Amino acid sequence: MEAGDFKDFAKAMTEYIAEYLENIRDRQVVPSVKPGYLRPLVPEQAPQQAEHWTAVMQDIERVVMSGVTHWHSPRFHAYFPTANSYPAIVADMLSGAIACIGFTWIASPACTELEVVMLDWLGQMLGLPESFLARSGGEAGGVIQGTASEATLVALLGAKAKTLFEVKAKHPEWADKDIIPKLVGYCNSQAHSSVERAGLLGGVLLRKVNPDSSRRLRGDTLRETIEEDVKNGLIPFYVVATLGTTSSCAFDALEEIGDVCREKDIWLHVDAAYAGSAFICPEYRYLMKGIEKADSFNFNPHKWMLVNFDCSAMWLKQPRWIVDAFNVDPLYLKHDQQGSAPDYRHWQIPLGRRFRALKLWFVLRLYGVENLQKHIRKHIALAHLYEKLCSADERFEIYEEVTMGLVCFRLKGNNEINEELLRNINGRGKIHLVPSKIDDVYFLRLAICSRFSEESDIHISWEEIRECADEVLKNHKK
Amino acid sequence: MEAGDFKDFAKAMTEYIAEYLENIRDRQVVPSVKPGYLRPLVPEQAPQQAEHWTAVMQDIERVVMSGVTHWHSPRFHAYFPTANSYPAIVADMLSGAIACIGFTWIASPACTELEVVMLDWLGQMLGLPESFLARSGGEAGGVIQGTASEATLVALLGAKAKTLFEVKAKHPEWADKDIIPKLVGYCNSQAHSSVERAGLLGGVLLRKVNPDSSRRLRGDTLRETIEEDVKNGLIPFYVVATLGTTSSCAFDALEEIGDVCREKDIWLHVDAAYAGSAFICPEYRYLMKGIEKADSFNFNPHKWMLVNFDCSAMWLKQPRWIVDAFNVDPLYLKHDQQGSAPDYRHWQIPLGRRFRALKLWFVLRLYGVENLQKHIRKHIALAHLYEKLCSADERFEIYEEVTMGLVCFRLKGNNEINEELLRNINGRGKIHLVPSKIDDVYFLRLAICSRFSEESDIHISWEEIRECADEVLKNHKK
Repeated sequence: MEAGDFKDFAKAMTEYIAEYLENIRDRQVVPSVKPGYLRPLVPEQAPQQAEHWTAVMQDIERVVMSGVTHWHSPRFHAYFPTANSYPAIVADMLSGAIACIGFTWIASPACTELEVVMLDWLGQMLGLPESFLARSGGEAGGVIQGTASEATLVALLGAKAKTLFEVKAKHPEWADKDIIPKLVGYCNSQAHSSVERAGLLGGVLLRKVNPDSSRRLRGDTLRETIEEDVKNGLIPFYVVATLGTTSSCAFDALEEIGDVCREKDIWLHVDAAYAGSAFICPEYRYLMKGIEKADSFNFNPHKWMLVNFDCSAMWLKQPRWIVDAFNVDPLYLKHDQQGSAPDYRHWQIPLGRRFRALKLWFVLRLYGVENLQKHIRKHIALAHLYEKLCSADERFEIYEEVTMGLVCFRLKGNNEINEELLRNINGRGKIHLVPSKIDDVYFLRLAICSRFSEESDIHISWEEIRECADEVLKNHKK
Repeated sequence: MEAGDFKDFAKAMTEYIAEYLENIRDRQVVPSVKPGYLRPLVPEQAPQQAEHWTAVMQDIERVVMSGVTHWHSPRFHAYFPTANSYPAIVADMLSGAIACIGFTWIASPACTELEVVMLDWLGQMLGLPESFLARSGGEAGGVIQGTASEATLVALLGAKAKTLFEVKAKHPEWADKDIIPKLVGYCNSQAHSSVERAGLLGGVLLRKVNPDSSRRLRGDTLRETIEEDVKNGLIPFYVVATLGTTSSCAFDALEEIGDVCREKDIWLHVDAAYAGSAFICPEYRYLMKGIEKADSFNFNPHKWMLVNFDCSAMWLKQPRWIVDAFNVDPLYLKHDQQGSAPDYRHWQIPLGRRFRALKLWFVLRLYGVENLQKHIRKHIALAHLYEKLCSADERFEIYEEVTMGLVCFRLKGNNEINEELLRNINGRGKIHLVPSKIDDVYFLRLAICSRFSEESDIHISWEEIRECADEVLKNHKK
């Protein structure tokens, strides 16, 4: 493809994208295709000769859009939001054109340096303590990971390396194989599944600790569990505090947990994947009180801050535990400036990395902090609107306190009727929700996901849910 | 940012990108900035109010391009190539607009299904055995990972899970902690640093085995090492064969290694990160003879097949070992169609994933197999051209056989003079190379990286290197 064709193609795609996003609420939110739908729509092999770009354009609706779940439709209320904005799309174009691999500073100085500075901008926007920021002049700083799962794993591996080092200093006769089976980490039993998975991947025990009745992990429970484990010869090394659980957006008691971790010298990682974006609004920072006691902090601008996936922001006070633990240093990756700027390849699981800081730069500048705050506040207000509508119908109950852009609710009564309600809602295909379950109580989650969502959309979603409830309850009366 | 501004911005960026890439050879390949250059060029904080997109456009040259290493310049010969093409850039625009997170089938059926079919297309293009492909109807199939490092780690974790299962079946009284310290994996001592790192991350021993004089890992050496380890009570569980090492693009003796692995029932992973793209040309498939004996295979279309990063293609014969080992299954990720299509979240380290199959689809259709083959053959021909030029100068020697788009060469003589030559070349800033070292012999690597490279560019690079050699040798005669 030559430059001329590229220009035509990219401009046609620009028009298509604007048309797609501006009219996204008119599309069926979840497609009605069955598994295997796509294979018969395309040839069995790649073509031998080049096709024209217009042929590809023509296939987008037929092959792709017919099977897309439209995450950015105001009718989409499943999971948590994933970000999508015009500035981020354009930034990714530039990233694709530069297409450098920023594994070391010299491999593209701009790629590393813009990331260092953007993570400082972002950290200041959240009110993170200076001890997390590169501008503090120490080793601390931020890095863009692909996902929160990777951040949790990276922090776990850092904590593991630090603990191995410290335990060996006390017990020089112990080898890794004597220590690793004794290591134990902790998280709220409501923590994201990726925390459990990080334990599996890292080959260490990760205990789920029961939260209080508001689903918050509390300091006392954590302390008791840790002390019991120590008595049994285990070595506590890692705690994950969740700010905004996936099931119900509960916030662990960070300050209490922080005190326990500092007292016991245990690495504290804070996973605020979804809710972290809200801390750009000062009125929500009470939910991260105690953050200065953490060793690492992570949230996903690619969820709720309009920076397209993948952009998971992580800050580390002592990156050295990651950098040193997994440092393999072949000659072809060495350079003369080593040590005077971060070589991000040591801060992450993969070696390669895209120029992702451009997305942050574009979004922060083209929205400005105030508009990003407006975006967060609007989503939270829409969640409260839904809460109000749902609460006013006495057949329903709100299952957990609404703090952010998520409403957990259910029909009063047993789980079966709620399972039926959700089947009914998703079966009609007008809106899309996923359920969750805590302590065997099944409930529905309505997340505000789209940056196009308006009050009228919430009314439509509520009407749809109300109608489905009418049907379900009518059937049950028969 | 509204749709109107987006259209203007995206179209201006399209023009900028075409201009940047079409004239890239005129830019200084590595910038002359020093660490810390960027921070003074931007404000200390993010702006409170939105800026106009033209302000961002104006800053791109000043802030970003002044510190970019131009990987797509024909003057760039470092590392290995990373891909960049117009069709992939446009595909990523669409991916950014759809911005679905394809962790399960239902989360966006098109995202999963296009990936399944594209990996089948690609597998056929390489001549992979049907036993790796989804179209064979079994559990086998391909997946897009972020990087080869992740593929190596995923395969290692699968091998570990499989071995733990099998060892426990024989020794039900053994626990993980009895088995894991005995596990041992193997790779060529010339394997990529990420293989060693996968061992560190996965918490298992990974032994580097010495290759033969052509830097190829051979079956006999591997067999001897394994048998010695078994005698010492270790449990061999994983072998990585490299097709195209980073230092010198050597190819392990895959068929011999495959025989050993099948005889000993050890998971064989093939890392063809760079060279794998060449297998779309039938004349190079002799280098992957024995591939049917492998359990997993990986190469990076994002290196040499014009699909922008990240797109690392991996095939697994038995994904179940990955899927089952790290399967955490919360209610909010369950869906009714589980089991009838892959849920790719189980095949990878992160949970989230972008719609990356679009890049493959666009590139394969808009180039066609023949043009992609031409691209590979042209790069290899250019490497041979450089080899010819360099060989004709009796002051130089070619250090390893040239098979792909990489030429390893050095001045006859000691390492110091070659280190000086490289410092001289990179110091002048006209072209960019990185060195490597094998058995204490230091040499320079010239990789053909850019899709814009022409014969005239190779002559320019050679002239530059020849002039630098003149200078270095003149100084030494003084």
